[in-house]
Amino acid sequence: MPYGFTSKILKVDLSTENVEIKKFDESFYRKFLGGRALALYFLLKELKPNVDPFSPENRLIFATGVATGIPLPGMNRYCVAAKSPLTNTFGESYAGGFFGPELKFAGFDAVVIEGKAEEPVYLWIHDGEVEIKKATHVWGQKTKKATETIRREVKDLRARVAAIGPAGEKLVRFANILHDMKYANGRCGLGAVMGSKNLKAIAVRGTQKLEFADKEKIVELAKWAAKAIKDMPGPHSRWKYGTAAVLLPLNELGLLPTRNFLDGEFEYAEQISGEKMAETILIGRKGCYGCGIMCKRIVRGKHPYETDPDYGGPEYETLAAFGSLCGVSDLNAISYANMLCNAYGLDTISTGVTIAFAMECYENKILTKEDLNGLELKFGNADAVVKLVEMIAKREGIGDILAEGVMRASKKIGRGAEKFAIHVKGKEVPMHEPRGKKSLAIAYATSPCGADHMQSAHDTLFERDVKKILPLGVFKPLDGTYLGSEKVRMFMYLNMWWSLFDCLGVCKFVVTPHPVAVFSISQLRDVVKAATGWDITIWEMLKTGERAITMARCFNIREGFTKNDDTLPERFFEPLRSGSMKGEKISKKEFENALKLFYEMMGWNLETGVPTEAKLYELDIGWISNFLKQVK
Amino acid sequence: MPYGFTSKILKVDLSTENVEIKKFDESFYRKFLGGRALALYFLLKELKPNVDPFSPENRLIFATGVATGIPLPGMNRYCVAAKSPLTNTFGESYAGGFFGPELKFAGFDAVVIEGKAEEPVYLWIHDGEVEIKKATHVWGQKTKKATETIRREVKDLRARVAAIGPAGEKLVRFANILHDMKYANGRCGLGAVMGSKNLKAIAVRGTQKLEFADKEKIVELAKWAAKAIKDMPGPHSRWKYGTAAVLLPLNELGLLPTRNFLDGEFEYAEQISGEKMAETILIGRKGCYGCGIMCKRIVRGKHPYETDPDYGGPEYETLAAFGSLCGVSDLNAISYANMLCNAYGLDTISTGVTIAFAMECYENKILTKEDLNGLELKFGNADAVVKLVEMIAKREGIGDILAEGVMRASKKIGRGAEKFAIHVKGKEVPMHEPRGKKSLAIAYATSPCGADHMQSAHDTLFERDVKKILPLGVFKPLDGTYLGSEKVRMFMYLNMWWSLFDCLGVCKFVVTPHPVAVFSISQLRDVVKAATGWDITIWEMLKTGERAITMARCFNIREGFTKNDDTLPERFFEPLRSGSMKGEKISKKEFENALKLFYEMMGWNLETGVPTEAKLYELDIGWISNFLKQVK
Repeated sequence: MPYGFTSKILKVDLSTENVEIKKFDESFYRKFLGGRALALYFLLKELKPNVDPFSPENRLIFATGVATGIPLPGMNRYCVAAKSPLTNTFGESYAGGFFGPELKFAGFDAVVIEGKAEEPVYLWIHDGEVEIKKATHVWGQKTKKATETIRREVKDLRARVAAIGPAGEKLVRFANILHDMKYANGRCGLGAVMGSKNLKAIAVRGTQKLEFADKEKIVELAKWAAKAIKDMPGPHSRWKYGTAAVLLPLNELGLLPTRNFLDGEFEYAEQISGEKMAETILIGRKGCYGCGIMCKRIVRGKHPYETDPDYGGPEYETLAAFGSLCGVSDLNAISYANMLCNAYGLDTISTGVTIAFAMECYENKILTKEDLNGLELKFGNADAVVKLVEMIAKREGIGDILAEGVMRASKKIGRGAEKFAIHVKGKEVPMHEPRGKKSLAIAYATSPCGADHMQSAHDTLFERDVKKILPLGVFKPLDGTYLGSEKVRMFMYLNMWWSLFDCLGVCKFVVTPHPVAVFSISQLRDVVKAATGWDITIWEMLKTGERAITMARCFNIREGFTKNDDTLPERFFEPLRSGSMKGEKISKKEFENALKLFYEMMGWNLETGVPTEAKLYELDIGWISNFLKQVK
Repeated sequence: MPYGFTSKILKVDLSTENVEIKKFDESFYRKFLGGRALALYFLLKELKPNVDPFSPENRLIFATGVATGIPLPGMNRYCVAAKSPLTNTFGESYAGGFFGPELKFAGFDAVVIEGKAEEPVYLWIHDGEVEIKKATHVWGQKTKKATETIRREVKDLRARVAAIGPAGEKLVRFANILHDMKYANGRCGLGAVMGSKNLKAIAVRGTQKLEFADKEKIVELAKWAAKAIKDMPGPHSRWKYGTAAVLLPLNELGLLPTRNFLDGEFEYAEQISGEKMAETILIGRKGCYGCGIMCKRIVRGKHPYETDPDYGGPEYETLAAFGSLCGVSDLNAISYANMLCNAYGLDTISTGVTIAFAMECYENKILTKEDLNGLELKFGNADAVVKLVEMIAKREGIGDILAEGVMRASKKIGRGAEKFAIHVKGKEVPMHEPRGKKSLAIAYATSPCGADHMQSAHDTLFERDVKKILPLGVFKPLDGTYLGSEKVRMFMYLNMWWSLFDCLGVCKFVVTPHPVAVFSISQLRDVVKAATGWDITIWEMLKTGERAITMARCFNIREGFTKNDDTLPERFFEPLRSGSMKGEKISKKEFENALKLFYEMMGWNLETGVPTEAKLYELDIGWISNFLKQVK
């Protein structure tokens, strides 16, 4: 048994109620490390091409990584993956919190689910055992009620419950999965996949201890990390203002997505800032398993938008998506929209972008009051935003169309609505402006799961950040608006590095080059070595990151995606309307050159975007090559 | 100043007698690390394309690496590089011994020499200073006499003297450079480049201390290494039998190059073995700076082949080249031939292969007694071998033609002699049989300096060796005769790893996966970190290895080499005539497929073999791209 893992993977077929426990050898774990790569292994090996994401054949995978459950800051994340109903690509979404570690304490590195239950069910996984339990009585419930009911039923109030809300049940294409009502596997519509399987929730509880190869080293690292977090200078700490700490600086830089990405600056930014939240509705802070950074918010919104603190509080992404992007300056309304998303099980980013899309349609008279149940959907109308969230979750009125995401909704609406649909491969663009952080242009275009901000550290890297990535090579700070070869190289390295985090189950906040990073690149290697006992190197680790990127790309190619799908919405090729970056745009030529360079750097064919056979063999996943040949 | 370096590079123009000391910033040292990569930097930046290797414009570079001079086993090597007169490619050759560390103690990381002295000179480098001194009186002298004369003149008997012998002066295309008469920068004819510049020797002496970032860690590693060497099991130790320890096992495997690569087994192998040497002529063992492995031999050959112990003793390569490859079983004669090579300054491998070539020509009546000053040049004629070494060194009779190396000699001789010329790109194939260690097929064909056995660990990797390269990825043992995708991957990784050693100045014997390895992959990183203080990773280090390979390839492309030059002698596509591998050959199709895979893995264009622009940018040597464009 490799240290740091449970060495058991749980396979559940909801159609047959068949349950199987699979064991793999150490080289399997070493090659994939967990999370993203592990999930892709099953998706590539088991899922047939061109399956409808809502078909029982789709796989839904909950995968921890080697780091998940190590008692150190940020070592608590897990991946949920499936073929995404939002994008038809590889779908993935990560959460921290407590579910991942608990799954390992319950004896499993991962759960691979297929089939569809005849009637709603939930899984109860506890200390090496699994039960498929009826969920008809919790079906239709919001996440809090469902979670509480299930906890009572399994007679363990400390069970961690990852549940979908009504939105997932209704197959909203950007429905998410929440555990403990506030830790979201937010993106790619994986909650809808769960809904399509009639799976309301997974409850886990475990008391098994993870064995590590070098416990003393982990204790030493824990002490070191505790002090490092304590010593963090105030402004860099995510404790004080949470992820929202970045909102005002981004606004200052002219990079706060505003009014559906028309503007780079929001005149009411202060009112939706982390600072404002701390002064007004913040009533607590929360961290994830083993982590003292405490970046999570607990809020209580005020009249007329009272909120339930059990649903947590808005992140930066949520504040921007429901705030600046919709032109909304009412922090209480935003918190309320956030609570609705967590209660109904909706991704706040996609929901906000979808509403902002509808707003721009309204402002351009493509949607009218009649289309909108009488809503006056101007930018800035907070009440309308709140109303629309609920309509989307319930698929009521226009909500039924918007629940399909901006790509499908814009096609259905027609009349030129497509140009207001800010997405890549069907996934709504998150709250990071590629026109001023241009590595995001490549990130969004090439991310295997559509527009995603978690594929790489963003740019505008300052000297201090650049020093932190020195262990990967010699780098120098590059301007955010630059999109030449050095930017592509930096992106490629950080892309592999971040992909590695998604295999390991490590939070991107605690590792360099994030400004609040606790661990250096070399320390992350020490962590993995201490956990597993492997004399592993950053070379091998980064290659796993690259392996996962390549596997994901092969998955998409098998699904029919080509390099023509590696695009950006037209909006980003047009100048920003306001803010300090006013006038800045992405040059199509620069973008195309950057893409080509990136393909070649990654060992992808320039004409087709398909990873070369040699690259697959080099990454020790030659079997995918045979398999791609069959598909073509 | 970066720790571990002197930060000074000495530039000497022998034509103008201009001397310059250059300083580079820390990022330069970090990007190139030294040795191979550093030398290539100067060759690419300073040398114009298509210069005659014997022209004054050629650069001759002595380059240490970051590890050179660290008081640890195997940290003593340095690179000599130039455009090679043997191959017209990048020429490189490494030596251990004491010269490299001494150069650093004298205050210089490297010496870059250009121009041609009007009359013979030598350089005297001591504690930060350099003098160009007349050498007319030592010109023509064998290495021992020249070394002794120079030491007396500079009034320092502890000066390290790297000298050429008469062969280098006479521009024998495989003349070498020897320091202290026995540590050879053997291959690629760099001694002839030195001769072409009228440079007889470089004497160095230094008393400066190298500063390291973490002296305690180095002391700790030194203690650890001393014990590790002490604990090495006998059979794996190179102390007992030197490099010749591999001779009998290779013969057993059918992989001892015999009779110009016709045979894989030599019936008199025992008589030329390390074991036999230890029983007969061995009178001492010697190590390099800081190294307790003591792989070097000191011998005293017996009548009629008395030898001078100051010239050391034969390595495995020499024993096989003058022994089995020429069918010679007389250890005394081989030792004598070895001494002649060290006295005249000849590469023992190229000399032996050239003589074996002439022998096969003789056996096939392409050369006759008349051509050979009456020598009966049958395989096995030890006396004739000894005679020919001297004739080559002095360019006497047939020796004048053979002094050009087998490629040129075979063309000159004609009459079908080409098929007996076992070389790649003009460099004679060393004593490792690619038909049974098939990764060598790719190594020989793609090595930037022609057939070379130091570009990668050879294959037939056993379980124990494979475990040692685990820190780079998951590997499994592969049969020596296998030449598929997994072999190509393993070769690629080891190729980068060994290229890194040549940048660092580390002996390949002390690092994994060599059977007598002292240091693991991770420990090598610890060494570099302790020396420099950089939080460097194996990723960055291996990328430097890859960078150097890529720079060397670009150098060759600029000189007009194409993928058509990445070939093997026909002999290796024909079956081995004897031994346990009898009948084994390289399949042309497998070889071509392997080459293609390797190109693609390395980011080289499949059609042209030229590194892609993206690869150059990825390796942070984009400037070479502009420069290749100009050349094309």
